[in-house]
Amino acid sequence: MRLAILGAGDVGRSVADLASEYGHEVVAIADSSDAAVDPSGIDVERTLERKVGNEPVGTAAPEDVFETEYDVLIEATPTTLDDAEPGFTHTKRALEADRHVVLANKGPVAERYGELRALEAESAGSIRFEATVGGAIPVLSTIEDSTPQAVTTVRGVLNGTANFILTRMAAEGLDYEHVLAEAQDLGVAEADPTFDVDGTDAALKFVILANVLSDGGFSLSDATVEGIQNIPGSALDLAAEDGRTIRLIGEATRESVRVGPRLVPENGALAVTGTRNIVQIETRHAGSLASSGRGAGGPETATAVLSDVGRLPTR
Amino acid sequence: MRLAILGAGDVGRSVADLASEYGHEVVAIADSSDAAVDPSGIDVERTLERKVGNEPVGTAAPEDVFETEYDVLIEATPTTLDDAEPGFTHTKRALEADRHVVLANKGPVAERYGELRALEAESAGSIRFEATVGGAIPVLSTIEDSTPQAVTTVRGVLNGTANFILTRMAAEGLDYEHVLAEAQDLGVAEADPTFDVDGTDAALKFVILANVLSDGGFSLSDATVEGIQNIPGSALDLAAEDGRTIRLIGEATRESVRVGPRLVPENGALAVTGTRNIVQIETRHAGSLASSGRGAGGPETATAVLSDVGRLPTR
Repeated sequence: MRLAILGAGDVGRSVADLASEYGHEVVAIADSSDAAVDPSGIDVERTLERKVGNEPVGTAAPEDVFETEYDVLIEATPTTLDDAEPGFTHTKRALEADRHVVLANKGPVAERYGELRALEAESAGSIRFEATVGGAIPVLSTIEDSTPQAVTTVRGVLNGTANFILTRMAAEGLDYEHVLAEAQDLGVAEADPTFDVDGTDAALKFVILANVLSDGGFSLSDATVEGIQNIPGSALDLAAEDGRTIRLIGEATRESVRVGPRLVPENGALAVTGTRNIVQIETRHAGSLASSGRGAGGPETATAVLSDVGRLPTR
Repeated sequence: MRLAILGAGDVGRSVADLASEYGHEVVAIADSSDAAVDPSGIDVERTLERKVGNEPVGTAAPEDVFETEYDVLIEATPTTLDDAEPGFTHTKRALEADRHVVLANKGPVAERYGELRALEAESAGSIRFEATVGGAIPVLSTIEDSTPQAVTTVRGVLNGTANFILTRMAAEGLDYEHVLAEAQDLGVAEADPTFDVDGTDAALKFVILANVLSDGGFSLSDATVEGIQNIPGSALDLAAEDGRTIRLIGEATRESVRVGPRLVPENGALAVTGTRNIVQIETRHAGSLASSGRGAGGPETATAVLSDVGRLPTR
């Protein structure tokens, strides 16, 4: 398939880099100011070199991407909340042009799910968004194959930054501020880590899961969210004395979405370490399925995007 | 889709029972002596009652199934080795009639993989076999979506009977014979448990995985296999002193298939407990994905069969 990639951050660049390995061609890639467009396939290597070298990715304008002949729009621009723009309108334009859209951008899927599905119903194109939940871990495709009606609850750890911080606090007996600084030095936490540590990032993912289970009805404002910023090191010490630790756990059902710190057994499945993520899917007929893996990262998230491309119907 | 089910054991009956929940219709079900056939859909409830009550499932002959109008043959007859008959010929006949086949029977996929793929290439029908590996855990679909070339190794615990026995031996300090008897009482081990305890069942699954990674080339005779029958309780005690335990671990790469008892960290991912299974998929770009869940059981395996039906191309 011919891919038009919006967003040239870690995810967009990795999708461009791995596309040919999955048998696909990149006909366009754009960041917020420039675009590289070539209907016969862009020179991925040189384009990525330019981006990484802080040069314009190409000589076209981002708007030109929509005029290109492409099969799938890859929406990998930064997640935004509320109106989820410009990601929502990017998706809308592609669907209205009967093109497929694969999203890594959580905004439209968490905040305007019903509208997306309505646009999809009117389009010859389909939307897929595995990459919005759990990076490389195949969460949404597992739910899709089991059929959403067979799934009762999805629970787990879906933010690697918060998980890393809690793992380090417990392991070293250090306090939150200290470990956050360490995480930022390592590139595990952003300069502005708010959405990771206040639970918003995890909540967006569990909102998406609730939307999948219920076919819509949820947005971020429906989630009950608590972050990890106020957990003292002493809380983790106390937990350890009882064979437990603390993790930022989210849970989505058809009725609700919650994210918050929870006590979990120290050696249990939910006590994943470092930046690893885990999802537990409770099913009606097959008990509980647990999947863990890398929840974030350019190549990791790109594999989820490219898996989705492989699952699109041929138009 | 209209399903024709061969095999009325736990798996075949569960597929019949759950089919309508997944939007499919059962037009035939056969055991080794009789069949129930109805092109407008059999009465599943009454048919299952007859089978469970030891009456003939229906008034037709098993051969009649192939004369029915169906879309997908569900091959759920008992796994056989070497020539994998009659499962192989059942699959061949359906493909030669341009029908899809979804297998829960490991025999044809482990022992005659190349021949199956050749028949599939000549057919308008497709074969899928998620249910042959790991029950409810979506192993093969995960590899398929990641693309097999991106997967380097698949490792894990894929036999719940052997895992249950080792778990109980470690937990209670009991010897193998004692725990095997307990497992048989609980229905976790068969009256003839040979294939579970000697590693054959696990080996068939890892042979199937190697065939998927390499597009064929392996059969059971290529696997290096050791079972659990000779593990003394003292070995588990010794392991425990070192923070480890013993599990029957299999590993498939493009080069080899091995199954045997291994020391694993007591609290590590591979030390799943009871009858639970786990698979670790090592990938080129996304690190390691681990999926655990129920590896066996009628409803569990049926969900894998029905997931596969949902992923078939419409003919």
